[in-house]
Amino acid sequence: MSELKDYARLCVHTITTKPWSIESAIQEYALQGISGITVWRNALENKNIQHTGHLIREQGLEIVSFCRGGFFPSTELSKRKQAIDDNKRVIDEAAVLGAPLIVLVCGADPGQSLQDSRNQIRDGILEILPHAQSAGIKLAIEPLHPMYAGDRSAINTLKQANDMASEINSGYVGIALDVYHVWWDPDLENEIQRCGSMDKLFAFHICDWKLNTTDLLNDRGLMGEGCIPIRHIRSQVEEAGFNGFIEVEIFSTIYWSQDQKEYLSKIKQAYLHC
Amino acid sequence: MSELKDYARLCVHTITTKPWSIESAIQEYALQGISGITVWRNALENKNIQHTGHLIREQGLEIVSFCRGGFFPSTELSKRKQAIDDNKRVIDEAAVLGAPLIVLVCGADPGQSLQDSRNQIRDGILEILPHAQSAGIKLAIEPLHPMYAGDRSAINTLKQANDMASEINSGYVGIALDVYHVWWDPDLENEIQRCGSMDKLFAFHICDWKLNTTDLLNDRGLMGEGCIPIRHIRSQVEEAGFNGFIEVEIFSTIYWSQDQKEYLSKIKQAYLHC
Repeated sequence: MSELKDYARLCVHTITTKPWSIESAIQEYALQGISGITVWRNALENKNIQHTGHLIREQGLEIVSFCRGGFFPSTELSKRKQAIDDNKRVIDEAAVLGAPLIVLVCGADPGQSLQDSRNQIRDGILEILPHAQSAGIKLAIEPLHPMYAGDRSAINTLKQANDMASEINSGYVGIALDVYHVWWDPDLENEIQRCGSMDKLFAFHICDWKLNTTDLLNDRGLMGEGCIPIRHIRSQVEEAGFNGFIEVEIFSTIYWSQDQKEYLSKIKQAYLHC
Repeated sequence: MSELKDYARLCVHTITTKPWSIESAIQEYALQGISGITVWRNALENKNIQHTGHLIREQGLEIVSFCRGGFFPSTELSKRKQAIDDNKRVIDEAAVLGAPLIVLVCGADPGQSLQDSRNQIRDGILEILPHAQSAGIKLAIEPLHPMYAGDRSAINTLKQANDMASEINSGYVGIALDVYHVWWDPDLENEIQRCGSMDKLFAFHICDWKLNTTDLLNDRGLMGEGCIPIRHIRSQVEEAGFNGFIEVEIFSTIYWSQDQKEYLSKIKQAYLHC
């Protein structure tokens, strides 16, 4: 496994530095030598998306992904149709922005079984797939930690995500793997190999799991602060053929309250040890 | 699947009504017609354990389990030895109390890989097994939710617990299944069947997963408050041959702050819909 000696593969999610506007994020990432940016949809509210895409490329940043589509399941047909329409809009926005990939947080409806939600996720992806394909944009199923099975995602292991991507069987549908969600999984190594062998490792996200996590959503750790064997998982991902961007995605009320420039410097330091 | 029409199979964990002393818990459970009690070790601090056992039986309550042993892994050999000694004391205490089963929260040390922790768990169980066997006390591996993989348990799915119990291959080692930890698992039904076919379904714990859980430890829901398909899981467990106590184990800062008699009434009402 290669050491990370520069920032050629470092991508930062705009949500990681949430207090910054998209313009500030672009400027500061570029100034600090970050190479890639994953744009969250909320950062584009009331913005000219095409102009924002130009701005990013002008600053020499590569757009890695657009976050996020998904949330397909619902007990109500009308809401499932709304989700399909919304996901098509996400694809359109990604196309205008110039993002090659959309991350899918698949969703779950607590009013029905997880299996029903899983079926609706598959059906939803199949329904938006032609739209994504004609826009030339890939879709990445992100397995979410089992603590989100209630209402965020019924896809909670890499095996499930691999099974679904394999069943859908399109070069446009693969996996976004986030160490936060999967590090505990005893099947992780096997499923990473399987994912790689299917050519479906589309994205790799990092952060850390703090031992005394105080919030299920917004208390993620900076790499090195917790117990995820990030380097070990990176080596598995790279042995499986992945050599793309390493994306830092940290939701943290603590870090969001700090000076974001200093925080970005900390991210860069921590990244080199991943 | 049979309806729950009375409290013949209802067991309450002393931790569920944590504000009560063990004497109050015994008295109130008996008064309200609860049939079983699972005693937590903390409830016995500075108590005469033998006397407490008598008191429980005098009140007509059945002692279902003793909580808890485990926490085997450590990077340090001396701490692993301490854990073995402590688990033997837990067995001795369970014997004096008159409990037939000890629930194992297996432990994890974030300073080493999950696989190392898993190996140490297996070794630890094997080491205390003769002591348990000669005391006539069974040991139940409890798979814990993946959000506890950092430092509470490296056994995070029923499949892992089944694999370990199968490998150890003793009639004294089985599984304690808590819906809170496993409800999200796509393999759950298969693994419940497998567990039953091995005669290793030793205990069944219930509570609920609240959609807006605010604390990783002490914000469990009362049955019906969340999204766990408890009745569905109970039917699977019973189809797999389990007909023992249904144990209510709820850690909840919210409920602990309320009137415990009223809370116990709520538990009884909620139980009948499980």
